[in-house]
Amino acid sequence: MKSKNSSHPDDSAPPRTLTLQPVAIDTYHENVAYLHRDCEIYRAEGFQALSRIQVDNGESSILTVLNVVDGNEIIRPGQLGLSEQAFRQLGLPAGHAVHISHAEPPSSMQAVRRKISGHNLSRQDYLDICRDISSNRYSKMEMAAFLVACGQSGLERNEVLYLTEAMLATGDRLSWNAELVADKHCIGGIPGNRTSMIVVPIIAAHGMLIPKTSSRAITSPSGTADTMEVLAQVTLPVDELRQIVEQERGCIAWGGTAKLAPVDDRLISVERPLAIDSDGQMVASILSKKLAAGSTNLLIDIPVGPSAKVHNLDQALRLRKLFEFVGDKLGLHLEVMFSDGRQPVGRGIGPVLEARDVMQVLESHPDAPNDLRQKSLILAGRILEFDPDVRGGQGYVIARDILDSGRALKKMHAFIQQQGKQLQAFSPGKLTREILADMDGYITHIDNLQLSRIARIAGAPMDKGAGVDLYKKLGESVVAGEPVYCIFAEFQSDFQFATNMSLDNCGITIGETAADTPGFME
Amino acid sequence: MKSKNSSHPDDSAPPRTLTLQPVAIDTYHENVAYLHRDCEIYRAEGFQALSRIQVDNGESSILTVLNVVDGNEIIRPGQLGLSEQAFRQLGLPAGHAVHISHAEPPSSMQAVRRKISGHNLSRQDYLDICRDISSNRYSKMEMAAFLVACGQSGLERNEVLYLTEAMLATGDRLSWNAELVADKHCIGGIPGNRTSMIVVPIIAAHGMLIPKTSSRAITSPSGTADTMEVLAQVTLPVDELRQIVEQERGCIAWGGTAKLAPVDDRLISVERPLAIDSDGQMVASILSKKLAAGSTNLLIDIPVGPSAKVHNLDQALRLRKLFEFVGDKLGLHLEVMFSDGRQPVGRGIGPVLEARDVMQVLESHPDAPNDLRQKSLILAGRILEFDPDVRGGQGYVIARDILDSGRALKKMHAFIQQQGKQLQAFSPGKLTREILADMDGYITHIDNLQLSRIARIAGAPMDKGAGVDLYKKLGESVVAGEPVYCIFAEFQSDFQFATNMSLDNCGITIGETAADTPGFME
Repeated sequence: MKSKNSSHPDDSAPPRTLTLQPVAIDTYHENVAYLHRDCEIYRAEGFQALSRIQVDNGESSILTVLNVVDGNEIIRPGQLGLSEQAFRQLGLPAGHAVHISHAEPPSSMQAVRRKISGHNLSRQDYLDICRDISSNRYSKMEMAAFLVACGQSGLERNEVLYLTEAMLATGDRLSWNAELVADKHCIGGIPGNRTSMIVVPIIAAHGMLIPKTSSRAITSPSGTADTMEVLAQVTLPVDELRQIVEQERGCIAWGGTAKLAPVDDRLISVERPLAIDSDGQMVASILSKKLAAGSTNLLIDIPVGPSAKVHNLDQALRLRKLFEFVGDKLGLHLEVMFSDGRQPVGRGIGPVLEARDVMQVLESHPDAPNDLRQKSLILAGRILEFDPDVRGGQGYVIARDILDSGRALKKMHAFIQQQGKQLQAFSPGKLTREILADMDGYITHIDNLQLSRIARIAGAPMDKGAGVDLYKKLGESVVAGEPVYCIFAEFQSDFQFATNMSLDNCGITIGETAADTPGFME
Repeated sequence: MKSKNSSHPDDSAPPRTLTLQPVAIDTYHENVAYLHRDCEIYRAEGFQALSRIQVDNGESSILTVLNVVDGNEIIRPGQLGLSEQAFRQLGLPAGHAVHISHAEPPSSMQAVRRKISGHNLSRQDYLDICRDISSNRYSKMEMAAFLVACGQSGLERNEVLYLTEAMLATGDRLSWNAELVADKHCIGGIPGNRTSMIVVPIIAAHGMLIPKTSSRAITSPSGTADTMEVLAQVTLPVDELRQIVEQERGCIAWGGTAKLAPVDDRLISVERPLAIDSDGQMVASILSKKLAAGSTNLLIDIPVGPSAKVHNLDQALRLRKLFEFVGDKLGLHLEVMFSDGRQPVGRGIGPVLEARDVMQVLESHPDAPNDLRQKSLILAGRILEFDPDVRGGQGYVIARDILDSGRALKKMHAFIQQQGKQLQAFSPGKLTREILADMDGYITHIDNLQLSRIARIAGAPMDKGAGVDLYKKLGESVVAGEPVYCIFAEFQSDFQFATNMSLDNCGITIGETAADTPGFME
């Protein structure tokens, strides 16, 4: 339609321009803008605390949540404050003129609402959603809506593929100039279980490329990066990582320095506090990270057990098919292994205690936990068989040879040397309490989740020495008063919380006969 | 299990106590705590920005999100800053000693996760969820998860009942010492449509009790409270409201001063930005608010039209049954009316323009919009028939008599007098632009959503004079160049945005014959 303009210039309009001011507050993944309550623009525009606004100077722009400021200590009327990340993201100097306006919700939220109504989304929808997330256009609420919608109606396997592709497309991608880049991943949920720190040295000692970028713990008592950090530096720039890998055929570093599938990190920061989990999200998350890291051949370990993430064979098979479908479509050579997830692997739970287990295995120490050794050898064997020159079924023997000959230990020392030896000497927590069996019998059940909780409350992974050292495993006999595990902590209050939690529910069940212990996948 | 303690007291533990410090930042419904990055407790405890922490002094405690502060301007190491609302909520003086700890997710999130998996929840589940929300234990993310879960798998009608009960149980409840307390509610979505401001004076003039607590606009260009505010004070303490209602049998005030169903307000603050909507949430929201306000007899208006909230008769019927089911179970006498939602009701959209329409109807002004008059009379008639002394079918005639005799106008003046006359004189926005028909023909379609958007962008409801004045309604003839509506704004930039939006899509369709106009519910 046409229009007939009968407006007169408006003299009383408030100034639309504000002066940019950094505010020394770290709001993590959430951009926050601070506007003074007496600012004319605030009153005229009808902004409301927590509403979403766009900040721009005509060229760059960011989306933020609004906080309203009183008093004159933080900012003054006429200024626009930005939290640390938001200020960096906008990239303008303090004092620069900026405009603010109401932010429309990201347009891809329409697709999210279709997903909420139960529809399947297209490849383009997932790409739009991931682009909007990666450019900070989604609030935490909006990400939660997306995740719940995906989790509830479930994702068709094609949708898992699209989501994986979209997460991959919205981040960096490493390439290693090698035909075969091996990797392994465990879907998690089992305390201890530090196989990567044994598998990677074995594979690299064999000469296969395995640039392992691992994660820090988010809800567990320790991630591979946290445990490796007891021995060596793990936060390395990508270039340095590349040099080490070129020389040593591997590394065990933290994956966070490269911007691999950053949308995945955003989604995880919402998924974890909500404790929502779906197969589709998990597969997309793992495979996008691995493909972004440049892996060509991937072994996935799915532990199965009553207190593992996957409880039974049916679930495990469904998950395997989904991994295979997406992996095949994206040209990733992928194999899935089911492992015994009925109890922790190794004895230590928490960075220092786990690092001790790992080194004992590498050093063929007589006290080395055999389950950790065996599982690592099986995994390493399967990965070695990615090598066309290795005959099917021979991987295990080769892996054992590399381990027993000390070549894996030597490789680990090379990694530590190259990545930089940890300068701080960590030791198990000074505060200790042994938890005692209250009857004669056999260990029939170990609750992975409860032991993880106790180790975390004790301070792991932040306090490297905190955690749980498990003396008894499934099927072993105990007598009343015999210690079954020991809690380690650094600080009194953590120690108190952890022991109280353990006294309330120690996570270990003792039965009268060893036959009460359920077998693996029974 | 028992335990053997072999700990020694720990001398090096950081002090666990922080000094409380208010921070002059308004974070609305979200509690934020500020902790200095150099604070020992921050480093030792492994807190992370945006993680959730509990703040307590042994007696009172609150849950907050954590922001990490650098520099020494906002707070110093050893202090714990709290945003304005959080500080008030904790209720301790500045300088008081407080402890912080990691906050566990609220236990009712387990029920939310069951809902995400598609299960129905129990009465107790809904009560637990509403209690946790009302005591600020839910983050916005968690509320979003709850809302999406309810919206996606849908709520069984029993669940809608439980949710309504739970929202009612977690707030205050007014009581009016009267057998019949009438109320009306429109589910919204139709611009203009200020029938309450005509219906309430008619009903109160008849002598029936109608203490109308109405809302402000959240996503619309004006709520009844915003429009009434052009004429009178609407923010009144509950006691004052009660006095006015006692004397005048009614009022038209903002409902926000009483704590009626506060959980509903929290949920709405998440629902609206996400633009997710479900029948179950809507019914629980409306009925909990009305029951909390002490209503015994309620008329619900469901406008039906292509750009209304409810698009067709099927949807309208389903919604009616749900209202009836929950209303009956909770002892509310409830009637539902379907109305024509194909276009705005009245001419004005925005507070000042709507108030003008309302006063014209009350004053029987020759220019008074007839559709607003007719709809108000029909609604008022139905409400009057709640009175056992009014014969079925006679309500309309009585309502018309009250309106035409000037008694409704007199009652409105009494409300204004009692609530307090608005001291500020509002007038339509100074900046105006008429939107012209680009062909000869008939108005065949009016897009409620687009007109609402234009009025909001023009500044409504914050700028009282901003909005849209609609000259032509469905079926009316126009000639090319004739104005169809006029945009009003107070500020240049809003004005520009609104006219641009209108030039892009004016929201009005002109057809060649009047027969192209779809009928109501066709």
